[in-house]
Amino acid sequence: MHVDLFLVPGPVNEERLNGKTLVLVDVLRASTTVCRSLTSGAKAVIPVERLDEAAELRAKLGPQDTILGGERRGIKIDNFDLGNSPFEYTEERVGSKTVILTTSNGTRGYTKANPTNLIITCGLVNVSRVARKVAETGKDLAILCAGEEGDFSIEDTLCGGMLIHKLKEVEKIELKLNDAASLALLLYRSNSDTLKRTIANGEHGRYLAEIGFASDVEAASDVDSIPVLPILKDRRIVLEES
Amino acid sequence: MHVDLFLVPGPVNEERLNGKTLVLVDVLRASTTVCRSLTSGAKAVIPVERLDEAAELRAKLGPQDTILGGERRGIKIDNFDLGNSPFEYTEERVGSKTVILTTSNGTRGYTKANPTNLIITCGLVNVSRVARKVAETGKDLAILCAGEEGDFSIEDTLCGGMLIHKLKEVEKIELKLNDAASLALLLYRSNSDTLKRTIANGEHGRYLAEIGFASDVEAASDVDSIPVLPILKDRRIVLEES
Repeated sequence: MHVDLFLVPGPVNEERLNGKTLVLVDVLRASTTVCRSLTSGAKAVIPVERLDEAAELRAKLGPQDTILGGERRGIKIDNFDLGNSPFEYTEERVGSKTVILTTSNGTRGYTKANPTNLIITCGLVNVSRVARKVAETGKDLAILCAGEEGDFSIEDTLCGGMLIHKLKEVEKIELKLNDAASLALLLYRSNSDTLKRTIANGEHGRYLAEIGFASDVEAASDVDSIPVLPILKDRRIVLEES
Repeated sequence: MHVDLFLVPGPVNEERLNGKTLVLVDVLRASTTVCRSLTSGAKAVIPVERLDEAAELRAKLGPQDTILGGERRGIKIDNFDLGNSPFEYTEERVGSKTVILTTSNGTRGYTKANPTNLIITCGLVNVSRVARKVAETGKDLAILCAGEEGDFSIEDTLCGGMLIHKLKEVEKIELKLNDAASLALLLYRSNSDTLKRTIANGEHGRYLAEIGFASDVEAASDVDSIPVLPILKDRRIVLEES
Protein backbone atom coordinates (compact mmCIF):
# COMPACT_ATOMS: atom_id res chain seq x y z
CA MET A 1 0.00 0.00 0.00
CA HIS A 2 1.26 3.48 -0.98
CA VAL A 3 0.80 6.02 1.80
CA ASP A 4 1.12 9.70 0.90
CA LEU A 5 0.85 12.11 3.79
CA PHE A 6 0.40 15.84 3.29
CA LEU A 7 1.68 18.01 6.15
CA VAL A 8 -0.25 21.03 4.91
CA PRO A 9 -3.33 21.29 2.68
CA GLY A 10 -1.67 23.63 0.12
CA PRO A 11 -0.07 21.14 -2.28
CA VAL A 12 -2.99 18.72 -2.37
CA ASN A 13 -4.85 18.50 -5.64
CA GLU A 14 -7.48 16.08 -6.86
CA GLU A 15 -5.08 14.29 -9.18
CA ARG A 16 -2.90 13.21 -6.28
CA LEU A 17 -5.93 11.77 -4.48
CA ASN A 18 -7.58 9.82 -7.28
CA GLY A 19 -8.60 6.28 -6.39
CA LYS A 20 -7.22 6.48 -2.87
CA THR A 21 -8.78 6.22 0.54
CA LEU A 22 -8.62 9.69 2.08
CA VAL A 23 -8.09 10.25 5.77
CA LEU A 24 -8.63 13.80 7.03
CA VAL A 25 -6.89 14.66 10.28
CA ASP A 26 -7.58 17.66 12.51
CA VAL A 27 -6.87 16.54 16.05
CA LEU A 28 -7.41 20.00 17.58
CA ARG A 29 -10.31 19.95 17.25
CA ALA A 30 -12.55 19.30 14.25
CA SER A 31 -11.93 15.54 13.98
CA THR A 32 -12.55 15.11 17.69
CA THR A 33 -15.72 17.20 17.57
CA VAL A 34 -17.05 15.18 14.62
CA CYS A 35 -16.49 11.89 16.50
CA ARG A 36 -18.10 13.30 19.63
CA SER A 37 -21.15 14.68 17.77
CA LEU A 38 -21.87 11.38 16.07
CA THR A 39 -21.57 9.36 19.27
CA SER A 40 -23.88 11.88 20.90
CA GLY A 41 -26.56 10.91 18.40
CA ALA A 42 -26.25 13.64 15.78
CA LYS A 43 -27.70 12.40 12.49
CA ALA A 44 -24.82 13.86 10.53
CA VAL A 45 -22.17 16.55 10.54
CA ILE A 46 -22.04 18.73 7.44
CA PRO A 47 -18.66 20.39 7.02
CA VAL A 48 -18.77 23.77 5.30
CA GLU A 49 -16.02 26.28 4.56
CA ARG A 50 -17.67 29.66 4.83
CA LEU A 51 -19.93 31.27 7.41
CA ASP A 52 -22.51 32.35 4.84
CA GLU A 53 -22.75 28.79 3.52
CA ALA A 54 -23.40 27.59 7.07
CA ALA A 55 -26.21 30.09 7.59
CA GLU A 56 -27.79 29.33 4.20
CA LEU A 57 -27.70 25.61 4.84
CA ARG A 58 -29.33 26.07 8.21
CA ALA A 59 -32.14 28.11 6.70
CA LYS A 60 -32.65 25.37 4.11
CA LEU A 61 -32.61 22.44 6.55
CA GLY A 62 -34.68 24.22 9.20
CA PRO A 63 -33.33 25.80 12.38
CA GLN A 64 -35.16 23.38 14.67
CA ASP A 65 -33.39 20.36 13.17
CA THR A 66 -29.90 21.80 12.97
CA ILE A 67 -27.10 22.94 15.23
CA LEU A 68 -24.68 25.55 13.96
CA GLY A 69 -21.16 24.98 15.28
CA GLY A 70 -17.72 26.27 14.62
CA GLU A 71 -14.88 28.62 15.39
CA ARG A 72 -12.46 31.14 14.01
CA ARG A 73 -9.14 31.51 15.83
CA GLY A 74 -10.47 28.96 18.33
CA ILE A 75 -13.42 31.11 19.44
CA LYS A 76 -17.13 30.37 18.94
CA ILE A 77 -18.65 32.37 16.08
CA ASP A 78 -21.24 35.04 16.95
CA ASN A 79 -24.83 33.78 16.66
CA PHE A 80 -23.67 30.17 16.39
CA ASP A 81 -25.10 27.60 18.80
CA LEU A 82 -21.82 25.96 19.67
CA GLY A 83 -18.07 26.49 19.29
CA ASN A 84 -15.58 23.76 18.42
CA SER A 85 -15.19 22.19 21.84
CA PRO A 86 -16.06 18.47 21.70
CA PHE A 87 -17.52 18.71 25.22
CA GLU A 88 -20.29 21.01 23.96
CA TYR A 89 -21.59 18.36 21.58
CA THR A 90 -23.68 16.44 24.10
CA GLU A 91 -26.71 14.27 23.47
CA GLU A 92 -28.92 17.04 24.85
CA ARG A 93 -27.59 19.55 22.36
CA VAL A 94 -27.09 17.54 19.18
CA GLY A 95 -29.05 14.28 19.58
CA SER A 96 -31.15 13.59 16.41
CA LYS A 97 -30.02 16.86 14.87
CA THR A 98 -27.77 17.71 11.95
CA VAL A 99 -24.64 19.61 12.93
CA ILE A 100 -23.40 22.22 10.46
CA LEU A 101 -19.74 22.72 11.28
CA THR A 102 -17.25 25.29 10.02
CA THR A 103 -13.76 25.54 11.46
CA SER A 104 -10.55 27.40 10.58
CA ASN A 105 -8.70 24.44 9.17
CA GLY A 106 -10.30 21.07 9.65
CA THR A 107 -13.49 21.35 7.66
CA ARG A 108 -11.80 22.56 4.48
CA GLY A 109 -10.28 19.25 3.36
CA TYR A 110 -13.70 17.72 2.83
CA THR A 111 -14.39 19.88 -0.20
CA LYS A 112 -11.09 19.04 -1.96
CA ALA A 113 -11.84 15.39 -2.44
CA ASN A 114 -13.63 13.69 -5.23
CA PRO A 115 -16.85 12.26 -3.77
CA THR A 116 -15.99 8.84 -5.20
CA ASN A 117 -13.20 8.45 -2.64
CA LEU A 118 -13.85 6.85 0.70
CA ILE A 119 -13.29 9.83 3.00
CA ILE A 120 -12.71 9.16 6.70
CA THR A 121 -12.48 11.59 9.61
CA CYS A 122 -9.57 10.70 11.86
CA GLY A 123 -8.37 11.98 15.21
CA LEU A 124 -6.34 10.33 17.92
CA VAL A 125 -9.66 9.40 19.53
CA ASN A 126 -10.47 6.92 16.74
CA VAL A 127 -7.11 6.20 15.09
CA SER A 128 -7.10 2.41 15.54
CA ARG A 129 -10.64 2.12 14.14
CA VAL A 130 -9.54 4.13 11.10
CA ALA A 131 -6.45 1.94 10.62
CA ARG A 132 -8.65 -1.15 10.60
CA LYS A 133 -10.94 0.30 7.92
CA VAL A 134 -8.01 1.47 5.76
CA ALA A 135 -6.56 -2.02 5.98
CA GLU A 136 -9.89 -3.60 5.00
CA THR A 137 -10.23 -1.47 1.88
CA GLY A 138 -6.66 -2.27 0.84
CA LYS A 139 -6.51 0.80 -1.41
CA ASP A 140 -3.65 3.28 -1.48
CA LEU A 141 -3.98 5.92 1.20
CA ALA A 142 -3.69 9.71 1.32
CA ILE A 143 -3.54 11.31 4.77
CA LEU A 144 -4.44 15.00 4.71
CA CYS A 145 -3.34 16.92 7.78
CA ALA A 146 -5.42 20.05 8.28
CA GLY A 147 -2.49 21.91 9.80
CA GLU A 148 -2.83 25.39 11.26
CA GLU A 149 -3.37 28.43 9.07
CA GLY A 150 -1.47 26.89 6.17
CA ASP A 151 1.35 25.76 8.43
CA PHE A 152 2.09 22.26 9.65
CA SER A 153 0.59 21.12 12.97
CA ILE A 154 2.49 18.80 15.26
CA GLU A 155 -0.61 17.03 16.59
CA ASP A 156 -1.98 16.25 13.13
CA THR A 157 1.41 14.99 11.99
CA LEU A 158 1.65 12.82 15.13
CA CYS A 159 -1.80 11.40 14.47
CA GLY A 160 -0.92 10.67 10.83
CA GLY A 161 2.28 9.00 12.04
CA MET A 162 0.35 6.91 14.54
CA LEU A 163 -2.09 5.78 11.84
CA ILE A 164 0.87 4.67 9.71
CA HIS A 165 2.41 2.91 12.69
CA LYS A 166 -0.86 1.02 13.31
CA LEU A 167 -1.12 0.01 9.65
CA LYS A 168 2.39 -1.43 9.81
CA GLU A 169 2.51 -2.96 13.27
CA VAL A 170 -1.09 -3.91 14.02
CA GLU A 171 -2.60 -4.43 10.57
CA LYS A 172 0.69 -5.87 9.25
CA ILE A 173 0.47 -4.10 5.90
CA GLU A 174 3.56 -3.52 3.80
CA LEU A 175 3.75 0.21 3.18
CA LYS A 176 5.50 2.50 0.71
CA LEU A 177 5.72 5.93 2.30
CA ASN A 178 6.26 9.34 0.75
CA ASP A 179 8.82 11.64 2.44
CA ALA A 180 6.21 13.36 4.62
CA ALA A 181 4.74 10.01 5.71
CA SER A 182 8.21 8.81 6.76
CA LEU A 183 8.68 12.02 8.71
CA ALA A 184 5.32 11.63 10.45
CA LEU A 185 6.14 8.05 11.41
CA LEU A 186 9.49 9.18 12.83
CA LEU A 187 7.75 11.93 14.81
CA TYR A 188 5.22 9.48 16.21
CA ARG A 189 7.80 6.89 17.18
CA SER A 190 9.92 9.52 18.92
CA ASN A 191 6.92 10.70 20.91
CA SER A 192 4.82 7.58 21.40
CA ASP A 193 5.42 7.56 25.15
CA THR A 194 4.77 11.26 25.59
CA LEU A 195 1.92 11.97 23.17
CA LYS A 196 -0.24 13.99 25.53
CA ARG A 197 2.65 16.10 26.76
CA THR A 198 4.01 16.74 23.26
CA ILE A 199 0.59 17.89 22.06
CA ALA A 200 -0.09 20.03 25.13
CA ASN A 201 3.34 21.67 24.69
CA GLY A 202 2.83 22.24 20.95
CA GLU A 203 1.98 25.65 19.54
CA HIS A 204 -1.72 25.06 19.01
CA GLY A 205 -2.07 23.08 22.25
CA ARG A 206 -0.63 26.00 24.20
CA TYR A 207 -2.81 28.49 22.34
CA LEU A 208 -5.98 26.54 23.13
CA ALA A 209 -4.99 26.26 26.79
CA GLU A 210 -4.45 30.03 26.91
CA ILE A 211 -7.98 30.70 25.65
CA GLY A 212 -9.47 28.24 28.13
CA PHE A 213 -9.61 24.93 26.28
CA ALA A 214 -6.91 22.86 28.02
CA SER A 215 -9.45 20.09 28.69
CA ASP A 216 -10.20 19.88 24.95
CA VAL A 217 -6.52 19.33 24.26
CA GLU A 218 -6.44 16.58 26.86
CA ALA A 219 -9.60 14.91 25.50
CA ALA A 220 -8.41 15.12 21.89
CA SER A 221 -5.17 13.37 22.86
CA ASP A 222 -6.98 10.43 24.44
CA VAL A 223 -6.11 7.65 22.01
CA ASP A 224 -9.01 5.42 20.89
CA SER A 225 -11.41 6.95 23.41
CA ILE A 226 -14.17 7.40 20.76
CA PRO A 227 -13.62 4.39 18.49
CA VAL A 228 -16.05 5.31 15.71
CA LEU A 229 -15.76 5.50 11.94
CA PRO A 230 -17.11 8.77 10.51
CA ILE A 231 -17.28 8.72 6.71
CA LEU A 232 -18.44 11.27 4.16
CA LYS A 233 -21.63 10.36 2.28
CA ASP A 234 -23.35 12.88 0.00
CA ARG A 235 -21.33 15.68 1.59
CA ARG A 236 -22.52 14.65 5.10
CA ILE A 237 -20.31 12.96 7.67
CA VAL A 238 -22.14 9.98 9.15
CA LEU A 239 -21.22 6.89 11.09
CA GLU A 240 -20.47 3.92 8.87
CA GLU A 241 -23.33 1.45 9.01
CA SER A 242 -21.94 -1.69 10.58
CA MET B 1 17.67 32.61 20.77
CA HIS B 2 14.25 31.88 19.28
CA VAL B 3 14.41 29.70 16.19
CA ASP B 4 11.33 29.50 13.97
CA LEU B 5 11.57 27.13 11.07
CA PHE B 6 9.04 27.13 8.23
CA LEU B 7 8.69 23.81 6.40
CA VAL B 8 6.91 25.46 3.46
CA PRO B 9 6.89 29.06 2.26
CA GLY B 10 3.09 29.43 2.39
CA PRO B 11 2.55 30.58 5.97
CA VAL B 12 5.47 33.01 6.08
CA ASN B 13 4.57 36.67 6.29
CA GLU B 14 6.70 39.73 6.96
CA GLU B 15 5.37 40.16 10.47
CA ARG B 16 6.75 36.78 11.54
CA LEU B 17 10.19 37.70 10.21
CA ASN B 18 10.62 41.20 11.65
CA GLY B 19 13.94 41.84 13.33
CA LYS B 20 15.21 38.31 12.78
CA THR B 21 18.12 36.87 10.88
CA LEU B 22 16.69 35.02 7.89
CA VAL B 23 18.22 31.88 6.53
CA LEU B 24 16.88 30.68 3.17
CA VAL B 25 17.39 27.00 2.42
CA ASP B 26 17.05 25.28 -0.95
CA VAL B 27 19.53 22.41 -0.94
CA LEU B 28 18.41 21.01 -4.33
CA ARG B 29 19.63 23.19 -5.85
CA ALA B 30 19.38 26.99 -5.66
CA SER B 31 21.40 27.44 -2.44
CA THR B 32 24.14 25.19 -3.77
CA THR B 33 24.21 26.99 -7.12
CA VAL B 34 24.45 30.39 -5.39
CA CYS B 35 27.42 29.23 -3.29
CA ARG B 36 29.10 27.72 -6.35
CA SER B 37 28.56 30.85 -8.49
CA LEU B 38 30.07 33.17 -5.91
CA THR B 39 33.14 30.98 -5.33
CA SER B 40 33.55 30.85 -9.12
CA GLY B 41 34.00 34.61 -9.09
CA ALA B 42 30.52 35.86 -10.02
CA LYS B 43 30.11 39.44 -8.81
CA ALA B 44 26.62 38.71 -7.55
CA VAL B 45 23.59 36.49 -7.97
CA ILE B 46 20.29 38.30 -8.43
CA PRO B 47 17.33 36.09 -7.52
CA VAL B 48 14.16 36.83 -9.48
CA GLU B 49 10.79 35.13 -9.46
CA ARG B 50 9.51 35.40 -12.99
CA LEU B 51 11.04 34.70 -16.38
CA ASP B 52 10.07 38.09 -17.81
CA GLU B 53 11.75 39.85 -14.87
CA ALA B 54 14.92 37.89 -15.60
CA ALA B 55 14.92 38.91 -19.26
CA GLU B 56 14.19 42.57 -18.45
CA LEU B 57 16.96 42.68 -15.90
CA ARG B 58 19.42 41.19 -18.35
CA ALA B 59 18.54 43.81 -20.96
CA LYS B 60 19.04 46.51 -18.36
CA LEU B 61 22.37 45.25 -17.04
CA GLY B 62 23.76 44.34 -20.45
CA PRO B 63 23.94 40.84 -21.92
CA GLN B 64 27.75 40.78 -22.00
CA ASP B 65 28.00 41.27 -18.22
CA THR B 66 25.26 38.86 -17.19
CA ILE B 67 24.50 35.17 -17.16
CA LEU B 68 20.90 34.05 -17.22
CA GLY B 69 20.38 30.88 -15.22
CA GLY B 70 17.49 28.87 -13.90
CA GLU B 71 15.06 26.03 -14.25
CA ARG B 72 11.45 25.00 -14.22
CA ARG B 73 10.69 21.42 -13.16
CA GLY B 74 14.44 20.92 -12.93
CA ILE B 75 15.09 21.65 -16.62
CA LYS B 76 17.05 24.61 -18.08
CA ILE B 77 14.80 27.33 -19.43
CA ASP B 78 14.78 27.92 -23.22
CA ASN B 79 17.15 30.72 -24.28
CA PHE B 80 18.82 30.79 -20.86
CA ASP B 81 22.61 30.41 -20.65
CA LEU B 82 22.61 27.91 -17.82
CA GLY B 83 20.25 25.63 -15.90
CA ASN B 84 20.35 25.11 -12.14
CA SER B 85 23.19 22.62 -11.93
CA PRO B 86 25.96 23.95 -9.65
CA PHE B 87 28.56 22.31 -11.90
CA GLU B 88 27.65 24.63 -14.77
CA TYR B 89 28.60 27.71 -12.77
CA THR B 90 32.35 27.55 -13.45
CA GLU B 91 34.83 30.42 -13.41
CA GLU B 92 34.88 30.36 -17.21
CA ARG B 93 31.14 30.87 -17.43
CA VAL B 94 30.35 33.21 -14.55
CA GLY B 95 33.67 34.82 -13.44
CA SER B 96 33.26 38.63 -13.07
CA LYS B 97 29.69 38.42 -14.28
CA THR B 98 26.33 38.94 -12.59
CA VAL B 99 24.17 35.83 -12.49
CA ILE B 100 20.43 36.36 -12.82
CA LEU B 101 18.82 33.26 -11.33
CA THR B 102 15.22 32.10 -11.34
CA THR B 103 14.24 28.70 -9.98
CA SER B 104 10.97 26.92 -9.17
CA ASN B 105 11.18 27.26 -5.44
CA GLY B 106 14.44 28.57 -4.04
CA THR B 107 14.62 32.07 -5.41
CA ARG B 108 11.16 33.07 -4.23
CA GLY B 109 11.96 33.48 -0.54
CA TYR B 110 14.27 36.38 -1.24
CA THR B 111 11.42 38.67 -2.17
CA LYS B 112 9.36 37.93 0.96
CA ALA B 113 11.81 39.43 3.39
CA ASN B 114 12.16 42.98 4.54
CA PRO B 115 15.51 44.25 3.21
CA THR B 116 16.49 45.35 6.73
CA ASN B 117 16.92 41.71 7.75
CA LEU B 118 20.23 39.96 7.41
CA ILE B 119 19.34 37.38 4.74
CA ILE B 120 21.67 34.42 4.30
CA THR B 121 21.69 31.70 1.64
CA CYS B 122 22.20 28.30 3.23
CA GLY B 123 22.74 24.83 1.84
CA LEU B 124 24.43 21.80 3.30
CA VAL B 125 27.58 22.95 1.48
CA ASN B 126 27.95 25.97 3.80
CA VAL B 127 25.86 25.11 6.86
CA SER B 128 28.61 25.44 9.49
CA ARG B 129 29.66 28.84 8.13
CA VAL B 130 26.03 29.99 8.35
CA ALA B 131 25.72 28.71 11.92
CA ARG B 132 28.78 30.74 12.92
CA LYS B 133 27.33 33.91 11.43
CA VAL B 134 23.91 33.39 13.00
CA ALA B 135 25.64 32.89 16.36
CA GLU B 136 27.68 36.08 15.92
CA THR B 137 24.62 38.22 15.24
CA GLY B 138 22.85 36.79 18.27
CA LYS B 139 19.44 37.76 16.86
CA ASP B 140 16.41 35.51 16.72
CA LEU B 141 16.40 33.29 13.67
CA ALA B 142 13.87 32.34 11.02
CA ILE B 143 14.76 29.44 8.75
CA LEU B 144 12.73 29.40 5.53
CA CYS B 145 12.75 26.12 3.70
CA ALA B 146 11.98 26.55 0.01
CA GLY B 147 10.27 23.17 -0.17
CA GLU B 148 9.01 21.70 -3.42
CA GLU B 149 5.99 23.12 -5.22
CA GLY B 150 4.40 24.29 -1.98
CA ASP B 151 5.11 20.97 -0.29
CA PHE B 152 7.77 20.22 2.31
CA SER B 153 11.15 18.96 1.12
CA ILE B 154 13.11 16.45 3.14
CA GLU B 155 16.53 17.82 2.17
CA ASP B 156 15.67 21.40 3.14
CA THR B 157 14.21 20.22 6.45
CA LEU B 158 17.35 18.16 7.11
CA CYS B 159 19.55 21.16 6.36
CA GLY B 160 17.49 23.39 8.66
CA GLY B 161 17.75 20.70 11.34
CA MET B 162 21.51 20.49 10.88
CA LEU B 163 21.83 24.27 11.22
CA ILE B 164 19.89 24.10 14.49
CA HIS B 165 22.06 21.21 15.67
CA LYS B 166 25.21 23.24 14.92
CA LEU B 167 23.85 26.27 16.78
CA LYS B 168 23.23 24.09 19.82
CA GLU B 169 26.18 21.75 19.84
CA VAL B 170 28.97 23.74 18.18
CA GLU B 171 28.00 27.35 18.86
CA LYS B 172 26.60 26.43 22.29
CA ILE B 173 23.59 28.70 22.02
CA GLU B 174 20.50 28.12 24.10
CA LEU B 175 17.60 27.78 21.71
CA LYS B 176 13.85 28.05 21.90
CA LEU B 177 12.40 26.11 18.96
CA ASN B 178 9.01 26.31 17.29
CA ASP B 179 7.28 22.99 16.53
CA ALA B 180 8.68 22.79 12.99
CA ALA B 181 12.21 23.55 14.21
CA SER B 182 11.94 20.70 16.75
CA LEU B 183 10.75 18.40 14.00
CA ALA B 184 13.65 19.41 11.72
CA LEU B 185 16.15 18.79 14.51
CA LEU B 186 14.64 15.36 15.15
CA LEU B 187 14.84 14.55 11.43
CA TYR B 188 18.48 15.62 11.25
CA ARG B 189 19.48 13.67 14.35
CA SER B 190 17.78 10.54 13.07
CA ASN B 191 19.62 10.83 9.74
CA SER B 192 22.95 12.42 10.64
CA ASP B 193 24.88 9.27 9.72
CA THR B 194 23.00 8.72 6.47
CA LEU B 195 22.49 12.23 5.11
CA LYS B 196 23.57 11.56 1.54
CA ARG B 197 21.54 8.39 1.28
CA THR B 198 18.43 9.96 2.81
CA ILE B 199 18.59 12.87 0.37
CA ALA B 200 19.32 10.68 -2.66
CA ASN B 201 16.34 8.46 -1.70
CA GLY B 202 14.05 11.45 -1.13
CA GLU B 203 11.38 12.42 -3.63
CA HIS B 204 13.23 15.34 -5.19
CA GLY B 205 16.59 13.57 -5.07
CA ARG B 206 15.12 10.66 -7.02
CA TYR B 207 13.45 13.02 -9.49
CA LEU B 208 16.70 14.87 -10.20
CA ALA B 209 18.56 11.59 -10.67
CA GLU B 210 15.90 10.48 -13.15
CA ILE B 211 16.39 13.59 -15.28
CA GLY B 212 20.18 13.18 -15.21
CA PHE B 213 21.33 15.21 -12.22
CA ALA B 214 22.43 12.54 -9.71
CA SER B 215 25.83 14.20 -9.39
CA ASP B 216 24.15 17.48 -8.39
CA VAL B 217 22.34 15.66 -5.59
CA GLU B 218 25.62 14.18 -4.43
CA ALA B 219 27.43 17.55 -4.58
CA ALA B 220 24.63 19.39 -2.80
CA SER B 221 24.78 16.86 0.06
CA ASP B 222 28.50 17.39 0.60
CA VAL B 223 28.47 19.12 3.99
CA ASP B 224 30.68 22.23 4.32
CA SER B 225 32.28 21.69 0.92
CA ILE B 226 31.76 25.36 -0.11
CA PRO B 227 32.14 27.21 3.21
CA VAL B 228 31.07 30.68 2.07
CA LEU B 229 28.60 33.22 3.40
CA PRO B 230 26.26 34.57 0.70
CA ILE B 231 24.15 37.48 1.94
CA LEU B 232 21.54 39.66 0.28
CA LYS B 233 22.56 43.30 -0.26
CA ASP B 234 20.40 45.65 -2.32
CA ARG B 235 18.54 42.67 -3.76
CA ARG B 236 21.80 41.06 -4.89
CA ILE B 237 23.37 38.01 -3.26
CA VAL B 238 27.08 38.66 -2.66
CA LEU B 239 29.79 37.17 -0.52
CA GLU B 240 30.08 38.85 2.85
CA GLU B 241 33.15 41.05 2.93
CA SER B 242 35.45 39.57 5.49
